[in-house]
Amino acid sequence: MILSYETKIRVRYKDTDQMGIMHHSNYIVMYEMARTEWLRDMGLTYAEIERRGIMSPIIEVQSRYLYPAFYDEVLTVKVYMNEMPMARFNILSEVYNESGKLINTGRVTLGFMHADTRRPCRAPEWFVEALEAYIEKSKAENKDE
Amino acid sequence: MILSYETKIRVRYKDTDQMGIMHHSNYIVMYEMARTEWLRDMGLTYAEIERRGIMSPIIEVQSRYLYPAFYDEVLTVKVYMNEMPMARFNILSEVYNESGKLINTGRVTLGFMHADTRRPCRAPEWFVEALEAYIEKSKAENKDE
Amino acid sequence: MILSYETKIRVRYKDTDQMGIMHHSNYIVMYEMARTEWLRDMGLTYAEIERRGIMSPIIEVQSRYLYPAFYDEVLTVKVYMNEMPMARFNILSEVYNESGKLINTGRVTLGFMHADTRRPCRAPEWFVEALEAYIEKSKAENKDE
Amino acid sequence: MILSYETKIRVRYKDTDQMGIMHHSNYIVMYEMARTEWLRDMGLTYAEIERRGIMSPIIEVQSRYLYPAFYDEVLTVKVYMNEMPMARFNILSEVYNESGKLINTGRVTLGFMHADTRRPCRAPEWFVEALEAYIEKSKAENKDE
Repeated sequence: MILSYETKIRVRYKDTDQMGIMHHSNYIVMYEMARTEWLRDMGLTYAEIERRGIMSPIIEVQSRYLYPAFYDEVLTVKVYMNEMPMARFNILSEVYNESGKLINTGRVTLGFMHADTRRPCRAPEWFVEALEAYIEKSKAENKDE
Repeated sequence: MILSYETKIRVRYKDTDQMGIMHHSNYIVMYEMARTEWLRDMGLTYAEIERRGIMSPIIEVQSRYLYPAFYDEVLTVKVYMNEMPMARFNILSEVYNESGKLINTGRVTLGFMHADTRRPCRAPEWFVEALEAYIEKSKAENKDE
Repeated sequence: MILSYETKIRVRYKDTDQMGIMHHSNYIVMYEMARTEWLRDMGLTYAEIERRGIMSPIIEVQSRYLYPAFYDEVLTVKVYMNEMPMARFNILSEVYNESGKLINTGRVTLGFMHADTRRPCRAPEWFVEALEAYIEKSKAENKDE
Repeated sequence: MILSYETKIRVRYKDTDQMGIMHHSNYIVMYEMARTEWLRDMGLTYAEIERRGIMSPIIEVQSRYLYPAFYDEVLTVKVYMNEMPMARFNILSEVYNESGKLINTGRVTLGFMHADTRRPCRAPEWFVEALEAYIEKSKAENKDE
């Protein structure tokens, strides 16, 4: 793991289904919310990335459901990466409930493409640099603690 | 009522909540689906309208919930209008369940705007003409029956 | 206005549509999220209300769209009431964007019903008492400031 | 492949995001809609399964995004199985756009559990029998063609 980030997301009433649990499609949205918060913490935003003419389409999603999540729980969504992005970018996730139990794991593979031509491209340099600076900053902060 | 249209929409598992009924926000999406089908029946599509540089933002929505809708039911969504669109466009709806019971009524007010400037405009002439042709066609069909 | 409450909700990527703005159905969900937070601040939770055998179905929703909301904006959703709940409970809302502009107003009318029989009932006494205690507490806090 | 089924699902405006395509979480919901229709064609319904005291929680979802889907397209969602359900049940999917291009593949793994105890169980006998009868019927129909 070269980098990780945690965010907290509450299960909304809208997210439940008649099984009385959070509908499974919502984890996919939670991964996206956590990625967004992570980018923001990195000094980037997805809005900013789109303004720079890059889109980041989803290539693959995998999600494993270990335990259900319930209405009104505050889930902890941890996203992390094990390698630097190249043409593809793997973001792994772990979702914990309020008791700290691991209830879901996920992996999202993203690509990069030019917004105008919709053609795939490698991770932009400014993106990799922002990521490296963020990794350095995280290391420094961990040393201080 | 100068024009009406009916479409059938099934309640998805995703649409239910832990109260065991369809979550109330889904009616708003159903009104939109029915409007879309209506336009298509009229020989227009919303995609086509956007290609002509017009967007049709929502100005107001009202929804009255009389009885719940349940998973897997096929609802009949009737949309109708009582007057021709000017700067604004009122579309009324009635939603019936499988037993024919009226379970929801709605009213959606739409506007028109230029996609490029995002400034409001009146109903485009080609839109009003398509609508008038559709009304004539409906009258002729009803006479034949 | 006898009571008001504000909460902040971020527009998710999932909430946007191809018009480039937050889809209008999401305001209905935001009203619900703000009600939930309000109840929690009151010392109640909707989960707790359901455990006491009461459900609170939606009777009517009205929403006025003044300006669009965009991806990643943090909206301020203010909910307030002008009268105590009886058989029905009106909750009004105002949604502000990051620049403080009022972009949406709403009104949600809720009822009360017994979860087992699904029959309507008046606002439970313990609910009204919790509300009154909360109003007193709010007044006291405002006096202190 | 021992059994397959196809259903058609239209991309709703609500399903699009500001990238101008269907948001990736919606494929997960489409897999569910196709499973539901398949069950119905089999003479079962998910509602019926729940009435018999069985729930069918999602254990794993995998989705590969090959090409985007656009607003108003009618997608063909094909679901199929390569083996009979035991404790787990794998349903594979392929999603085709209107031009017949394969745009997404998926795999959903479901389990079975008792609704009252929420404990996992094997595929109920009546479920396996319904499935076998359906396979026989499908074979007979294919022979006739």
